[in-house]
Amino acid sequence: MAYVTARFLARAPGSGRVPAALRSASTRLHDGPIRQAEAAAADRFDLKAYMVDKARRVDAALDRAVPLRYPERLHESMRYSLLSAGKRIRPILALASCELVGGDEATAMPVACAVEMLHVMSLIHDDLPCMDNDDLRRGRPSNHRVFGEGTAVITGDALIALAFEHVVAATASVPADRVLRAVAEYGSAMGPEGLVAGQFVDIDSEGKAVGVGVLEYIHLHKTARLVEAAAACGVIVGGGGDAELESVRRYARCVGQLFQVVDDILDVTKTTEELGKTAGKDVASGKTTYPKLMGLEKAQELAQTLVVKAEAELHGFDRVKAAPLRHLARYIADRQN
Amino acid sequence: MAYVTARFLARAPGSGRVPAALRSASTRLHDGPIRQAEAAAADRFDLKAYMVDKARRVDAALDRAVPLRYPERLHESMRYSLLSAGKRIRPILALASCELVGGDEATAMPVACAVEMLHVMSLIHDDLPCMDNDDLRRGRPSNHRVFGEGTAVITGDALIALAFEHVVAATASVPADRVLRAVAEYGSAMGPEGLVAGQFVDIDSEGKAVGVGVLEYIHLHKTARLVEAAAACGVIVGGGGDAELESVRRYARCVGQLFQVVDDILDVTKTTEELGKTAGKDVASGKTTYPKLMGLEKAQELAQTLVVKAEAELHGFDRVKAAPLRHLARYIADRQN
Repeated sequence: MAYVTARFLARAPGSGRVPAALRSASTRLHDGPIRQAEAAAADRFDLKAYMVDKARRVDAALDRAVPLRYPERLHESMRYSLLSAGKRIRPILALASCELVGGDEATAMPVACAVEMLHVMSLIHDDLPCMDNDDLRRGRPSNHRVFGEGTAVITGDALIALAFEHVVAATASVPADRVLRAVAEYGSAMGPEGLVAGQFVDIDSEGKAVGVGVLEYIHLHKTARLVEAAAACGVIVGGGGDAELESVRRYARCVGQLFQVVDDILDVTKTTEELGKTAGKDVASGKTTYPKLMGLEKAQELAQTLVVKAEAELHGFDRVKAAPLRHLARYIADRQN
Repeated sequence: MAYVTARFLARAPGSGRVPAALRSASTRLHDGPIRQAEAAAADRFDLKAYMVDKARRVDAALDRAVPLRYPERLHESMRYSLLSAGKRIRPILALASCELVGGDEATAMPVACAVEMLHVMSLIHDDLPCMDNDDLRRGRPSNHRVFGEGTAVITGDALIALAFEHVVAATASVPADRVLRAVAEYGSAMGPEGLVAGQFVDIDSEGKAVGVGVLEYIHLHKTARLVEAAAACGVIVGGGGDAELESVRRYARCVGQLFQVVDDILDVTKTTEELGKTAGKDVASGKTTYPKLMGLEKAQELAQTLVVKAEAELHGFDRVKAAPLRHLARYIADRQN
């Protein structure tokens, strides 16, 4: 992946501090051989193997969380969308953030599963004919195309309720006050000042000329807020301190915005087949996107700037433990679907 | 109100124990003058004044819980449905159940507001064209008729997320483990083995011939489960013990089923104007109802049986503190809309 240039850094808001990518290069000169070896190990980190491993365990936990009970068709519908082949970025962020502050995978798995339930419910409702009206999701017909609109609405409702129940029921080993903070975090991330506010402004803006301010509002709320919550909940249940939580929040906000910038870029540069969801629909629906507002090249530059900013937030952490999050940011920037 | 006869009691499942209405008449013979005076006071209880007072304070708390923020139209939509003239039965059940076990109103108000948010979100989604397709709710055009379908879906999603956030954020004075139990209770009550399961089986059964088993499944899940959760959360945050919680749960399940039996009766005996929602729609849509299954008279008998069963569950509690719940059960049986 091409690294940033000083030009991009100078343009990034809040980029006054030295980015991690540059800082680590200079501090490495003063490191002893052990830290150098650790740094080398962290840099060789195999993100693909890490993601495959984590996603497999998240899938198994999600499978257990939604057994095929009566009413079967409702549970089939939940499982159809929840267990479809997703990248599990949000759950992996929750797991990696918990491990970053010394927690283990089992501790974070319930909040990891919950965030995927919340994310998937937002996709199901977003795809409805009265919303984005999208027939394709994760390479398959969207939920309402298979199960009907009424069931799709109910399936989303079931998943959001189950997410909150799941956080509580499945975190018996975590102190109650931490679990409560996780519930509040997800409630706030999903609610009328979170994801649904972004969804609302998004459908409300369709066909209107909106500026970069509204566009950023949509993406910060519709995407970045839940990405932030996933990482924050990982830190919270893992027992991280306030300063660690704030750093991870800033990291995740960059990653969340990055996610959306890249989504917008892919929408105009990839085919429906490559994406597993309808390509070119932003242009077709007259939606304001980053490439439309600033041009494709500048949007790609913004993506690189966000990677550098995200990495900078991880500098205060153990380099080996931070490797998954550092590599995840780069992966999200470079992803092809 | 006409009281039950032995015939109804003999038909009620689980009615082996002596109902409160009969038991209190016999035990009263042995009461001293103070307990007799208390009992007389409890029997004179002014439910209407109690409900007006509680509903006013619930409305004020709901008003504060959803201020008119950006995006304004989304918050307007939430407020339109949440603050419309409802009877606030579920919040009042939460408040009265908390007071039953010695808790105060302020302690239970967050769980009371949360259950109204959950109830209202279920109404908004239930009224959608892809669900019950109803144009009228609480005497006004239903949410999607005013704000559009997309916003109605989002508004429901916002309310369910806000409900969970609200329980946690607004119960700072309640021990964390109790708040967590309340979150789990509402999650379970709303989720795929709760309210939405009832909604699903309901829309899935439309036009089909279903038996009393399916009908009871729908009502126990679609209505009674959340009514039970409201009362249970009142007891939980009020610090009630397990035995108290179980009694209140059984009381509330009777009240919840009662609610639906009466709803079915009103649908065939009242006009749209009297109800504030579309009358006769169960018959029009071919829906299975209690009057259709067992005839109007037997349905009315069932309602009376449920009142007696509900009252019986309150017998172990202080008679004065139990007065609101006892009178509420009778009110729900006798309500005209």
